[in-house]
Amino acid sequence: MSELTFNERFNVACARAGNSRLCIGLDTDINAVPNFLRSTDNPVLEFNVSIIKATHDLCCSYKMNLAFYESYGEKGMHALKHTLAHIPAGVLTIGDGKRNDIGNTAQRYADALFDYYGFDAITVNPYMGMDSLKPFFSYTNKCVFVLALTSNPGSADFQRLRIDDTPLYMHVADRCMAEYGGTGQLGFVVGATHTVGLEKVRGLVGKDIPLLLPGIGTQGGDLQEVTRINNGGIALYNVSRAICNVSNGQDFAEQARSAALAFLQQEKAAGN
Amino acid sequence: MSELTFNERFNVACARAGNSRLCIGLDTDINAVPNFLRSTDNPVLEFNVSIIKATHDLCCSYKMNLAFYESYGEKGMHALKHTLAHIPAGVLTIGDGKRNDIGNTAQRYADALFDYYGFDAITVNPYMGMDSLKPFFSYTNKCVFVLALTSNPGSADFQRLRIDDTPLYMHVADRCMAEYGGTGQLGFVVGATHTVGLEKVRGLVGKDIPLLLPGIGTQGGDLQEVTRINNGGIALYNVSRAICNVSNGQDFAEQARSAALAFLQQEKAAGN
Repeated sequence: MSELTFNERFNVACARAGNSRLCIGLDTDINAVPNFLRSTDNPVLEFNVSIIKATHDLCCSYKMNLAFYESYGEKGMHALKHTLAHIPAGVLTIGDGKRNDIGNTAQRYADALFDYYGFDAITVNPYMGMDSLKPFFSYTNKCVFVLALTSNPGSADFQRLRIDDTPLYMHVADRCMAEYGGTGQLGFVVGATHTVGLEKVRGLVGKDIPLLLPGIGTQGGDLQEVTRINNGGIALYNVSRAICNVSNGQDFAEQARSAALAFLQQEKAAGN
Repeated sequence: MSELTFNERFNVACARAGNSRLCIGLDTDINAVPNFLRSTDNPVLEFNVSIIKATHDLCCSYKMNLAFYESYGEKGMHALKHTLAHIPAGVLTIGDGKRNDIGNTAQRYADALFDYYGFDAITVNPYMGMDSLKPFFSYTNKCVFVLALTSNPGSADFQRLRIDDTPLYMHVADRCMAEYGGTGQLGFVVGATHTVGLEKVRGLVGKDIPLLLPGIGTQGGDLQEVTRINNGGIALYNVSRAICNVSNGQDFAEQARSAALAFLQQEKAAGN
């Protein structure tokens, strides 16, 4: 395990990718894998390896949403494990599972994701409370992105309910900052579709707490606005389908590279 | 897939087990598997099959917490899939993964758990909102247990925060009832350690909404009190370690059967 902190590794990864905060989402749906790969032994793995080869110099990280691998059974877990082995050292890996459970069970999820799979960072759901998050912080030099405000409309249902005039997601951020803000292991997920929420969270946590920002592009988040609000803080801009699923022909990896290059141009234009 | 609703299948399963609401938790930690099984090809699977053989006539359901299988990698997913194949028809299966994600991704979790693994019921986390739960209801005749109030002390941190004088977990229950109360697919997880919360939830939802009640025994939930409050409603009493890990010798399955029999006696004494 690296001796560097997550933020130190982020800075290296970001520099390696030409100062890009791009996090490519390898949310590989077996049904979206191009036909010509379907006859291979593990199409999901083949697809991922091609995308990684074509884009690894253009992104600081890859994020794998575990749902896609889980729905593909044992083969999916095989694809996940071997995809990780193909990601070059120096590019960060995020296991997006939004896991949450009570202490001894949460520890097993932590073991699975940080030890067995070896992710640099993971996402967790805070609903069960602070004791349910604790085991994830037992792995030093890893980052735990706690869901604060998610990018979907349903974030209004519970996350944005107000308690003493403060929305739930800010209570979550507050409690996590109080307990883990100084560990170098805490991050938050904030949907890039919520610029007001993003401003509030960044204002509370400061620039050194990594934010994982899904929802740029397809879901409507505006890169220029997000970059302005983020104000140079540690952040990862997650883009999945808009890079990986541009083409489902023989040129899918080439097209993914073009889309990633275009994103880097947009980042530059937005002032990084 | 069965044409019967989840509640109809629950009633059959309950009767088959002598009116027991016992749900045995197969939360099989590879480190807790008796030594003499460790040299087998898949000790977790061997352990589970022995427990199932010894107890399947004494419980209405088995619940598998996915964390334990996930931490054991591909072999864990193999054990999970094949454990399910050993559970007799008529005994319900619950995939306890507390999953939650946005719509198209949540659909993949639903596919994984209801289709690939074939569970009768699963647990989900509501933090991301109602749209994140919707895909789980696309499988009819299955049950979706939404986390309301969990058994751990950390449930005070967010679940019990009050919004307009109503705790968050009751907002969750309310919203889910309004949307899915009439589908026959909705259930809730309520920690048996919270008798006040259990009374509130049972009061709101009525007797026909299944409640999954962890925390009896080891965590301090009182069976007599829980049975009184449940008042004949559809409920599953989850017990894991107090049945499966009584002995870690050659007699572990025999001891599990004895513990299950003792639990059934306690249920009878509590008036079922």
